[in-house]
Amino acid sequence: MITLHHLRIGRSLFCAWLLEELHLEYELKEYFRNPKTFRSQDDLKSVHPLGKSPIIEDGSLMLTESSAITTYLMEKYDSENEFHPCREKINTWAKYTQWLHYPEGSAFAPLLIDMLLQRTKDSSQRLNEFSSGEIVLHLNYIQEELDNNDYMLGNFSAADISIAYVIGVADTGKHLAPYPKLLEYLTRCKNRAAFQKAKLRVVE
Amino acid sequence: MITLHHLRIGRSLFCAWLLEELHLEYELKEYFRNPKTFRSQDDLKSVHPLGKSPIIEDGSLMLTESSAITTYLMEKYDSENEFHPCREKINTWAKYTQWLHYPEGSAFAPLLIDMLLQRTKDSSQRLNEFSSGEIVLHLNYIQEELDNNDYMLGNFSAADISIAYVIGVADTGKHLAPYPKLLEYLTRCKNRAAFQKAKLRVVE
Repeated sequence: MITLHHLRIGRSLFCAWLLEELHLEYELKEYFRNPKTFRSQDDLKSVHPLGKSPIIEDGSLMLTESSAITTYLMEKYDSENEFHPCREKINTWAKYTQWLHYPEGSAFAPLLIDMLLQRTKDSSQRLNEFSSGEIVLHLNYIQEELDNNDYMLGNFSAADISIAYVIGVADTGKHLAPYPKLLEYLTRCKNRAAFQKAKLRVVE
Repeated sequence: MITLHHLRIGRSLFCAWLLEELHLEYELKEYFRNPKTFRSQDDLKSVHPLGKSPIIEDGSLMLTESSAITTYLMEKYDSENEFHPCREKINTWAKYTQWLHYPEGSAFAPLLIDMLLQRTKDSSQRLNEFSSGEIVLHLNYIQEELDNNDYMLGNFSAADISIAYVIGVADTGKHLAPYPKLLEYLTRCKNRAAFQKAKLRVVE
């Protein structure tokens, strides 16, 4: 059985969501952050030196990085291509792959900087300018790419696991008011039965 | 023929490096940053709304995100698995996929914050603490994972395109002095004939 290592509060909820979409059984192991530093503690670092989650174990494989986990789960457990395009349609598959890399590759860093700046009294004009400009750029882009579709590729796919996380972080940072389509998208994702099931097990 | 859109100074050199490893022909289109803001300008934004590079065009496909481009190039042009593990060895392939996601997923954000802080007189204790702690964590991790191997997976692979970029950014930020193995690794990567060829065409 797959084991999901989950650091509270953290991104593993979205990994659990995909596991639920795939109807896979998994064991959940929870870890808590140091309340002062908000970082992970030795218990999670004994599982993996970076002390980050999600981490999954599947037999002898221990795997980190959310979208690498997504890619692995698709390859091993979505052989009917219910949640990802088949590689034979290589251009569609390449665009799907792009959506798996885009959150961390481009969209997440300014949201992280914004989150860190919001948590502190420090300010940095350079970083504020960078993050606020980039956040607008990316939210505009995602909303345009979503267009009038329910999900990023039209039908629900594993790409939505990645993008909904970014939109959720933007929502937490109070950036979504000018983006009604993205708010509706986030609600649509969170209303899925699999997300609700994951949320009952994995406290974010 | 593949077109590589390259914003100077930027990451596209590493995409060109992979194209050279694969002995693929490509047309290079260069763009320049606004000298004041150091951001891309309207010419690149007319190619792609995010105005970031690398971007490749291959027939009707336009693709962004460095590691998504790597994944696509491997799927389409590395059918003999010279530069990436075959999917049938799923655990090895999963770890390789993890290395493609790890730079942007974990290692790059603190280096970006550090770079932005080094470029300005602003300071943020919270961000400085975050970036300096994370940079040490990741460089230690990569050096341990590299172990005594020449390359991340033992032999050279597309994973090195991702990791060498991160190590290069760490080098630019003057973080590599305590990591002799990573310095040697970076030199080894940059001494490859394909990297040298790419560098002659793509001015970083």
